[in-house]
Amino acid sequence: MSREKFQSISAADFFYKNREIAGFDNPVRATYTIIRELVENALDACEQYSIKPEVRVKLIDEGSSIYRLKIEDNGIGVPYDQVPYAFAQILFGSKYTLRQSRGIFGLGGKMAILYGQITSHSTVKVMSSTGGFEKYSYELNINIQENHPIIRKKEVTPNPARWRGTIVQFNFEGDYIRAKPKIVEYFRQTSVLMPYANIFFVDPEGVLYRFDRITDVMPKPAEEVKPHPYGVDLEVVQRMINASRSNNMGDFLANNFHRVGVATALNFLKSVKISADANPKTLQPKDLLTIVSRMKDYDGFQPPDAQCLSPIGNDLLEKGIMREYKPEFVAVTQRGASAYSGYPFIVEAAIAYGGDIPIAPPDEMTVFRYANKIPLLYDLHSDVAMKVIKKINWQRYKLEPNSMPLAFFIHICATKVPYKTVGKEYIADRPEVEYEIEWALKTCAREMRMHLAKKDRVSSMQRRLTVFERYLPLISQFSTELSGAPNQPNIEKVLKRLQANAKQVEQRSLVQTD
Amino acid sequence: MSREKFQSISAADFFYKNREIAGFDNPVRATYTIIRELVENALDACEQYSIKPEVRVKLIDEGSSIYRLKIEDNGIGVPYDQVPYAFAQILFGSKYTLRQSRGIFGLGGKMAILYGQITSHSTVKVMSSTGGFEKYSYELNINIQENHPIIRKKEVTPNPARWRGTIVQFNFEGDYIRAKPKIVEYFRQTSVLMPYANIFFVDPEGVLYRFDRITDVMPKPAEEVKPHPYGVDLEVVQRMINASRSNNMGDFLANNFHRVGVATALNFLKSVKISADANPKTLQPKDLLTIVSRMKDYDGFQPPDAQCLSPIGNDLLEKGIMREYKPEFVAVTQRGASAYSGYPFIVEAAIAYGGDIPIAPPDEMTVFRYANKIPLLYDLHSDVAMKVIKKINWQRYKLEPNSMPLAFFIHICATKVPYKTVGKEYIADRPEVEYEIEWALKTCAREMRMHLAKKDRVSSMQRRLTVFERYLPLISQFSTELSGAPNQPNIEKVLKRLQANAKQVEQRSLVQTD
Repeated sequence: MSREKFQSISAADFFYKNREIAGFDNPVRATYTIIRELVENALDACEQYSIKPEVRVKLIDEGSSIYRLKIEDNGIGVPYDQVPYAFAQILFGSKYTLRQSRGIFGLGGKMAILYGQITSHSTVKVMSSTGGFEKYSYELNINIQENHPIIRKKEVTPNPARWRGTIVQFNFEGDYIRAKPKIVEYFRQTSVLMPYANIFFVDPEGVLYRFDRITDVMPKPAEEVKPHPYGVDLEVVQRMINASRSNNMGDFLANNFHRVGVATALNFLKSVKISADANPKTLQPKDLLTIVSRMKDYDGFQPPDAQCLSPIGNDLLEKGIMREYKPEFVAVTQRGASAYSGYPFIVEAAIAYGGDIPIAPPDEMTVFRYANKIPLLYDLHSDVAMKVIKKINWQRYKLEPNSMPLAFFIHICATKVPYKTVGKEYIADRPEVEYEIEWALKTCAREMRMHLAKKDRVSSMQRRLTVFERYLPLISQFSTELSGAPNQPNIEKVLKRLQANAKQVEQRSLVQTD
Repeated sequence: MSREKFQSISAADFFYKNREIAGFDNPVRATYTIIRELVENALDACEQYSIKPEVRVKLIDEGSSIYRLKIEDNGIGVPYDQVPYAFAQILFGSKYTLRQSRGIFGLGGKMAILYGQITSHSTVKVMSSTGGFEKYSYELNINIQENHPIIRKKEVTPNPARWRGTIVQFNFEGDYIRAKPKIVEYFRQTSVLMPYANIFFVDPEGVLYRFDRITDVMPKPAEEVKPHPYGVDLEVVQRMINASRSNNMGDFLANNFHRVGVATALNFLKSVKISADANPKTLQPKDLLTIVSRMKDYDGFQPPDAQCLSPIGNDLLEKGIMREYKPEFVAVTQRGASAYSGYPFIVEAAIAYGGDIPIAPPDEMTVFRYANKIPLLYDLHSDVAMKVIKKINWQRYKLEPNSMPLAFFIHICATKVPYKTVGKEYIADRPEVEYEIEWALKTCAREMRMHLAKKDRVSSMQRRLTVFERYLPLISQFSTELSGAPNQPNIEKVLKRLQANAKQVEQRSLVQTD
């Protein structure tokens, strides 16, 4: 009987061995994931600091299935001493805070670089500057077994133009031909939510895909917030106590939790029968457990607010959809802030009709899903959005998603998106999220029904008018002849009134909002 | 403009923050996942060492949604000094080898314990012995921020009975009432593949679910193998070179790869134009890249063999299905070993008919999926098995999965199961795996069609016999009366021949194999 061999592995080694769970299943999927992860880091580096994004992506075919990716942004830049860790150490990053951002795992960009390293023996070249007098270049590898950066080269050069941003370049083994449809779709859908960004992509065939800025308005960036009591557990509270300087529970609660002030803190402590003067650092484990359990169902807390979120807004969402799909009509809506397990979220939705929107293939629907501005292109049928769309009785809104040129857009922004996978493919069905998506879609559907009904009214009015215009003169002529009257009656007045009527109906209907 | 805050987090912290990706979404799901992960560790600790498993699981309701789990196995035991790491350090384990096992991530059991710690402030109590003169008890916590075990207590006691195995106990916040159907189903389906195990589960309501051993035959345990050249990448080869004592490439290849001997190694090296005498440690990066790229498509390697796998076998699979579902008929098959990306795998399948197998609800089918003997109870519709089942034209086999009492069993065993999620919910659709599942099911379907056809023949023969038995005497009587003959003819001989005929058809049909 042999004995078991025990060993410890690094986080880098874990994700290296199991890279398919982060979206690196095969060269096709990897090509898509690599571009996506780096574009998202680039966009986060701009948007969170109210910088209008300029992101340039270039993919070059180097032969033998090896590609070179170069991506440049005008974002905040990575500080000099953080570059090696930010690009070559797994589970290191700036995203571990309670604030809406695309990245959350501190994983994707590094996995892309790691994948490049193991498939093409590539180093990653990073040039960055935070806009100071210097810019710096690094050439890095990842020591996978130890999860540490290896610095192959570094250089600091003057930055007289005060350039600010980051340029990342590396090689990887991929398959652009087969990944292309998803990649182009990814850029297109990304640009829909960012009409304020310039995004350029030059593909290995030399084709330039460009998505030009059409507005200078940006959504306000998300702010970091303290944790809400509904969303914490023992570990979080214990860490907060360790980090806190408060020596009484009243202060501790009022200083460390989102939307908890002194009065709320005192009321809460009264409800769990713990003194406001108790020292958090010497609290009994069972008292701590009582506090944390009670936090989840105490109804005296204010609900989380949405300052940590950065939704697109109706106006930008409509602009983005109009630019890309030129629909005949689009109904957009934004729900108020809601929360699940203490994490605030906002759902935005739109339904677009006509224009470049195709009629969906049989048994399918055209659904565009977004989470924190990331388009989700895989596993539609496992996603909560699809569940809701299937549940809604569309006939009630006189909509037929399978035979009309309709597209559904759903955007959920949250401090913590309930992804089911590290590869960010789809969203779990939390009841609160489901409810918000349902009502957002129903609001849009109602508006769409009114639009289509008006369109019907206008066209039936037009048909009626055509009938009158054709037959009224004939009727007038025949009746005159039959009655033997000398002159035909004046039908102009009747026709004019009908025309005026029709015009009015049409004009009223052209006003979208009702 | 604020600066970004960078930080590094431990692997434990990462999975703590993102526990939903490991199957800890909510108390219901967590209850299921915790039991499953610990049962699987217990079974692995037995089976891989040819120990017939005796696994006892007890779940006790402690009030306020807190449960206490106690699980005991008779497995190999965890060595004294490894206990703290094996139970309280994420990404530490004995499963990081090329060998079929349930666990692969070194994550599940620890995540269960971590979840207990953060929801109930529980320590985990572990008692273990490898069957020596001592047994040892630990009380542990996980330092999540550092990913280190904290030893609260430890004790070594004499073990005069030479008891061997492991007992794990801890508390967690859960919801057994709502998790119960999946948990009971999990035990039931687990036992189907293990008719050689005793598994007992006492639930919080005091109900005992027991699955008794019905055979002493066990599948041979899986052996560890070296990596196959089709399945390696630069990182793996580099690590092998670092660890190797070979000072020439010929030796290095022949000593370190699965199914590569000296002759194969020399042929391969010739094909990449690298000398067999070259020292692996001083190889140029571009030569290494050439070698690794060529390994994936060189056709001179033997395919991986299946000694590292431990399938159930037709006999045990049939026994297990018979015990649990008592079907009228079951067709089982095992495919030969195949491989994807250098990882060997074997597909086993069965189709069962009648007995306790229900007719599936409308638009559904009864499908039981297993991977390395783990039942997969979630995300059926994303799984490759479902894709194959939908693709097969069942009418060709005169089977109607929606209206007949049919159940499909699919078991894939592999050194690396292509899971799509850390929570091991479903399997990605690798073409090789898809192909094997398809042919396994078609083989079973053909056998099932023959069985049903025979059953038809028997029942139509029986109907015919009934008609003869009823009417032949009457016909004989009428004809005698009509013809005025003095005696009725002897119909006994005719009837006997018909009865003998029917019996023969029936007996031939009862022999299952054909």
